[in-house]
Amino acid sequence: MKPVLLAFAIVLAIGTASSYILEPGPVVKATVGELWPKPKSQTSSPSYFILKRSSFQLKVTNRTCDILEKAIERYQKLILSVGSDERRSSAEVSKKSWRSDPNFIGNLEEVKVNLKAPCEQLPYLGMDESYELVIDETRASIDSFSIWGMLRGLESFSQLVVGNMLRVNTTTISDSPRFSHRGLLVDTSRHFISMNILMTILDGMAYNKLNVFHWHIVDDHAFPYQSTVYPELSAQGAYRPTMVYTPEDVQKVIEEARLRGIRVMSEFDTPGHTRSWGISHPELLTPCFDQYAGKFGPIDPTKESTYTFLYNLFQEVVGVFPDQYIHLGGDEVGFECWASNPDIMEYMKENRLYTFEMLEEQYIQRVVDQIDSLNRSSLVWQEVYVNGVRLPNGTVVHVWTGNRQDLLQRITGDGLPALLSTCWYLDHLAMGGDWRKFYECDPHDFVGNQKQKDLVLGGEACMWAEAVNDNNIVQRIFPRVSAVAEKLWSEEDVDDADEAARRLEEHTCRMNQRNIPAQPPNGPGFC
Amino acid sequence: MKPVLLAFAIVLAIGTASSYILEPGPVVKATVGELWPKPKSQTSSPSYFILKRSSFQLKVTNRTCDILEKAIERYQKLILSVGSDERRSSAEVSKKSWRSDPNFIGNLEEVKVNLKAPCEQLPYLGMDESYELVIDETRASIDSFSIWGMLRGLESFSQLVVGNMLRVNTTTISDSPRFSHRGLLVDTSRHFISMNILMTILDGMAYNKLNVFHWHIVDDHAFPYQSTVYPELSAQGAYRPTMVYTPEDVQKVIEEARLRGIRVMSEFDTPGHTRSWGISHPELLTPCFDQYAGKFGPIDPTKESTYTFLYNLFQEVVGVFPDQYIHLGGDEVGFECWASNPDIMEYMKENRLYTFEMLEEQYIQRVVDQIDSLNRSSLVWQEVYVNGVRLPNGTVVHVWTGNRQDLLQRITGDGLPALLSTCWYLDHLAMGGDWRKFYECDPHDFVGNQKQKDLVLGGEACMWAEAVNDNNIVQRIFPRVSAVAEKLWSEEDVDDADEAARRLEEHTCRMNQRNIPAQPPNGPGFC
Repeated sequence: MKPVLLAFAIVLAIGTASSYILEPGPVVKATVGELWPKPKSQTSSPSYFILKRSSFQLKVTNRTCDILEKAIERYQKLILSVGSDERRSSAEVSKKSWRSDPNFIGNLEEVKVNLKAPCEQLPYLGMDESYELVIDETRASIDSFSIWGMLRGLESFSQLVVGNMLRVNTTTISDSPRFSHRGLLVDTSRHFISMNILMTILDGMAYNKLNVFHWHIVDDHAFPYQSTVYPELSAQGAYRPTMVYTPEDVQKVIEEARLRGIRVMSEFDTPGHTRSWGISHPELLTPCFDQYAGKFGPIDPTKESTYTFLYNLFQEVVGVFPDQYIHLGGDEVGFECWASNPDIMEYMKENRLYTFEMLEEQYIQRVVDQIDSLNRSSLVWQEVYVNGVRLPNGTVVHVWTGNRQDLLQRITGDGLPALLSTCWYLDHLAMGGDWRKFYECDPHDFVGNQKQKDLVLGGEACMWAEAVNDNNIVQRIFPRVSAVAEKLWSEEDVDDADEAARRLEEHTCRMNQRNIPAQPPNGPGFC
Repeated sequence: MKPVLLAFAIVLAIGTASSYILEPGPVVKATVGELWPKPKSQTSSPSYFILKRSSFQLKVTNRTCDILEKAIERYQKLILSVGSDERRSSAEVSKKSWRSDPNFIGNLEEVKVNLKAPCEQLPYLGMDESYELVIDETRASIDSFSIWGMLRGLESFSQLVVGNMLRVNTTTISDSPRFSHRGLLVDTSRHFISMNILMTILDGMAYNKLNVFHWHIVDDHAFPYQSTVYPELSAQGAYRPTMVYTPEDVQKVIEEARLRGIRVMSEFDTPGHTRSWGISHPELLTPCFDQYAGKFGPIDPTKESTYTFLYNLFQEVVGVFPDQYIHLGGDEVGFECWASNPDIMEYMKENRLYTFEMLEEQYIQRVVDQIDSLNRSSLVWQEVYVNGVRLPNGTVVHVWTGNRQDLLQRITGDGLPALLSTCWYLDHLAMGGDWRKFYECDPHDFVGNQKQKDLVLGGEACMWAEAVNDNNIVQRIFPRVSAVAEKLWSEEDVDDADEAARRLEEHTCRMNQRNIPAQPPNGPGFC
């Protein structure tokens, strides 16, 4: 009987515990010198050059401008600091003589930075971000017809350089992004985020070829934007008088973003999400009655003074933020306060507005018209579209909740451009590296014709700040946002998460070496 | 018809959006000068003293020792730095004259530190951590019969001091912990955690009155513990030669913990979770066959050399770690490799071991006996108990998975002491502040008599490090571990999470001011 008993036990055991046999060391082995996001086309060979720390330079051979000069300064520094962590770890200094390695084909003294057209001053939706990169025996150059493409090419070249010896394999890259709007929303209202952290975030965005910093700058809880026409908004609405973005701060964010080819798109979300506006301007908000007595609801859309105030503010905003687009919000407008207010009800009756959606529509229509008259374009959250507001041609609808496929199909079917964020909420947490769920989402994964697909401008990862502040926001964004960045830059068929995992392991370490405190992407490991 | 239509719309709207009416500012208002964890008994009044920055001192009036002197130095510094963040924010400097405030009752020049018994050298399970604290018109003193209680009293006093003016209300506290084992497990194998981060964690533990640093120092992926008898274990098993804890590092952790009344309990988890041991000592592990050929499984329990090796190692370990307890692991032992190995099967047949549990039991029994012979006590993960290993009296069973109530009932019913971790896994993430789930768990929430309840020594929060490294481990631990700390220190009826939320908001800001980068606990807010 005994052997039978034993055999039975074995079967039982194997059924429950087959994952306990594993290898020591990192669970995902990092690639060496692979790019993130993956370029459109790339060929490489085992032959490699060595960059001399003492003399290597990125050499401008054609057009230049301040953006390019500063980028070269940044990338020269990043490239020469490659491998410094390995040098600290003495045992990893390569002892083998690369000079006798048949793959070693020489030193690389310079890479030609060949910008073939004058610089544009400001990044914009649809800007040219394409570039060509060649490192081989005949030449070493980055070519682009656009400063924005050149910035992406410099980033790519910097990622090719590896190891303490600054090795770079012969490589040919032809690259351009799949989507033109590749954004990161940062909420600076729920928690105030310091300027130095915002600078770190911009750096990290550049390392991932993201190009829109969507600044959700104010919200219900705090109003940190220091306005010049209404300084009382932040004087009373910021958490603390010191927790504000001064005009100089805002200009610094815009300038540092511009230098990295990143647009700064501001959001002044109305008519909901405006409670902090009402601290200094209670007359803007709807006073609630009945069970909500004493509280304030959304902006009061029935008063003419509301629109004067908003026009003055938006007139300032378009002067401050040079981007063509302003995000007008329009999400999560609660109707219960409007419903409790007799003046609102009376106004609706008089104006034959039979639903609150109609009241909201009237409000949004006027704000969109204001932005239109200021020669800017609008983005709105999906509710504005769903609630039936007639939107001017070109107004971008930002999808964030519900069935993304249905919404994208409907919005683009109606001829409106769309942005996707639904599947890319960075505040939604799960165990582990927690980036594969972001990587599984594709903005074109809906039923629609080519015209509809073309109306999807791209998407944004959203870092809502209820649970992040200076202490953890960078760690929470990176490297999880990298998954989104690759979905938006790389071709549709770049969708193998296991392949990506190895590159992301390297990319995360690269970000760490560049002082981005990105968290581990894949489980046990080290940089 | 129109009014009817409108009324219908209102009903619809209210049904979906009643949470959009809210107040500006922090979502949870922080308390001022409240303690975390909540003491056993406390009475306070609105009357307050002011501490003079220039002259205030914690004054030893009875026994003293190095632990006390160093604690006074730390707390003197912490107390005098209270409010420094407010001073930076000029607008918040109190302008009102406290001298004319009827609640102001004078300056506090000193607090008497009255240690009424000689210092013990090392913290231990069941040590006396009680203290009395009185600040009123007649006296200002912290009294304790134990250095460990005095450390807790100093922490409590430091938490009473608030604001730029260093105000402290008249207060009487009588305090002692509910459970004697209040631990935090830190896994330094899956990611290497630097010494300075470990020091920050110990500081944060002291601020939460936690008293056991459970050092899960090695595991499958890496072996960062630098052994003197087997230095090759870390030389080959660490991620990098620099990613090790030298004997000096380990002594520093033990010493800094000791000075804070924190035990350092080491874990050398066997026979599973030992893959990294096998890099330098493959003979220790079971070679797998058949579909696992080429791989290694758990420690080979059939070889006599295994036990010689372990004895040598544990003999070193008990010399290095002075704590009475050693955690022996014993979790997640996969049997499939043992099952594939003909030598193991032959051994089992010869020794009439009919199940792998019996083989495991034989192994654990010998290791437990080794620890016994070294005059130390053992802890084991629950599997060892569940698999039926006969454990020596006093061996602590550490519950971590499955039905905690059932397990605690069974373990304590069998007369064994138990520790709870099941509900306190810090690597289990959810949106938001993510601490209430930890706060809802009580170690006595199982069916059992008083004797059984008394066998629950306490519990531990577990920071498994698959997804944390130096960049995010402190942020992930704090303040979520604070919820566990309060469950383990405070009385059973301290279970109102809404009340706790306000104190935790303050406690988190206090930790931030003390350079613990704790993440936000409750949603929108600021410190």
